[in-house]
Amino acid sequence: MPSMNSNIKSIVKDQKSWLCVGLDMNPEKLGSDNLNVLKYHTFKVIDATREFAVAYKPNFAFFERWGAAGFSWLEETVSYIGSDHVKIADAKRGDIGNTAKQYAESIFNHFNFDCATLSPYMGKDSIEPFLNKPEKGAFILCRTSNPSAKELQNLQVDGKPVYYHVAKISKELNKKDNVGLVVGATAPDELVEIRSIVSDLPMLIPGIGAQGGDLKHSLKIGNETGVALINISRGISFTGDLTEKTIYETAYKYVAEMREVLL
Amino acid sequence: MPSMNSNIKSIVKDQKSWLCVGLDMNPEKLGSDNLNVLKYHTFKVIDATREFAVAYKPNFAFFERWGAAGFSWLEETVSYIGSDHVKIADAKRGDIGNTAKQYAESIFNHFNFDCATLSPYMGKDSIEPFLNKPEKGAFILCRTSNPSAKELQNLQVDGKPVYYHVAKISKELNKKDNVGLVVGATAPDELVEIRSIVSDLPMLIPGIGAQGGDLKHSLKIGNETGVALINISRGISFTGDLTEKTIYETAYKYVAEMREVLL
Repeated sequence: MPSMNSNIKSIVKDQKSWLCVGLDMNPEKLGSDNLNVLKYHTFKVIDATREFAVAYKPNFAFFERWGAAGFSWLEETVSYIGSDHVKIADAKRGDIGNTAKQYAESIFNHFNFDCATLSPYMGKDSIEPFLNKPEKGAFILCRTSNPSAKELQNLQVDGKPVYYHVAKISKELNKKDNVGLVVGATAPDELVEIRSIVSDLPMLIPGIGAQGGDLKHSLKIGNETGVALINISRGISFTGDLTEKTIYETAYKYVAEMREVLL
Repeated sequence: MPSMNSNIKSIVKDQKSWLCVGLDMNPEKLGSDNLNVLKYHTFKVIDATREFAVAYKPNFAFFERWGAAGFSWLEETVSYIGSDHVKIADAKRGDIGNTAKQYAESIFNHFNFDCATLSPYMGKDSIEPFLNKPEKGAFILCRTSNPSAKELQNLQVDGKPVYYHVAKISKELNKKDNVGLVVGATAPDELVEIRSIVSDLPMLIPGIGAQGGDLKHSLKIGNETGVALINISRGISFTGDLTEKTIYETAYKYVAEMREVLL
């Protein structure tokens, strides 16, 4: 089996796309807290975007909100996505080694995801249990897209910000070609700096759309020396009249814009 | 309703105990991956320790490992604990505000926990959605107990380590008396330093037992000016022959040792 990173590259090449579809199934946005309605919409978003998506990224919080029933819906969602796309567990886990092992077991073996987003705050031993097999891996939070991100991530250590050190640690962890980084589109200068440190690690770039990040800049910088996926969640799942046709057209517009920049 | 922090103090006073029982239900340690066996053991640990425990801290990873069935067992576990003890969701979540809201909804309203462990890497807006109500709150990871903790947490920023800045941020967030800190017993010097910064915030101290931290030092420093709970997971749940009697006696021994130090 190909490593996580080479698998991402190869799907990008086949699809001529850099789109990661974030599945943040917000009941408030859908105007319903009926789980069947939410599930139906999830499947609709997946069907509408299969043609262009490289990856799907279910956001665990929106499933966990419903407890066991939500996890059962997440199980169905992963299986519905199938094996032609990269399946990213947006879980942002991070715990001591003994516990991290269990999270890896959950995400890779129970839910059947290909990779997980992880927090680096607890250091390498909280990440390593996710890196045992080349074909499974992790996207490590480096510089996130939210307004408060800089409070900790931009603190200066020996003249370099904390996210710089995270990028260095991530590079060291990438022994099996299965480590990537999360870098927000809302931090355009940091993106340039991080890309120069980890020239070859894949990037997962959130913050486009609702959060206001710049698509073209992110796409260009992210893909200069490595591969970068652009995540769109609300901007696709909750676009216009919420029909499959509108979702398809919106996703297509994003991908067409990406192709214009990179092809 | 009392605030999270005053509720913890009052249960500590009533129980004359500082014990938090961590529920890390490891199938390898139990020699079974039958969920009913694991559930039965969880309830046994709870029953064996009700008399002395201040708090219970289910570790989400060990439940998530089983997907929807695990979450259903977690739902039952929270309800089995009841309302006489503090219920801590050991979930170590941390995500952008919009997503954090959903995690808070899950942990507080769906699962009915009193508080959650959170990672500070993404800053204040990832924590604030957990602090809206005084009676619900968060223990923020400050200096964790694992060997790799120091890789990021001890980096020096303006002559002070990253965990110092997290302690400061946590203090600022404690507007409703519902913020505490996680500080590992395996970092005894850091514990002294952190207690001097946040003299009144409750502490949750893991790392005793399997991880080798010192009980007396942690207990003494932690409770000098505020309240500190000592978490024991494996050391209680998987002690000796695993009978209720042995678990009760082991928990009692820990609490007797605590009382010797503090009463």
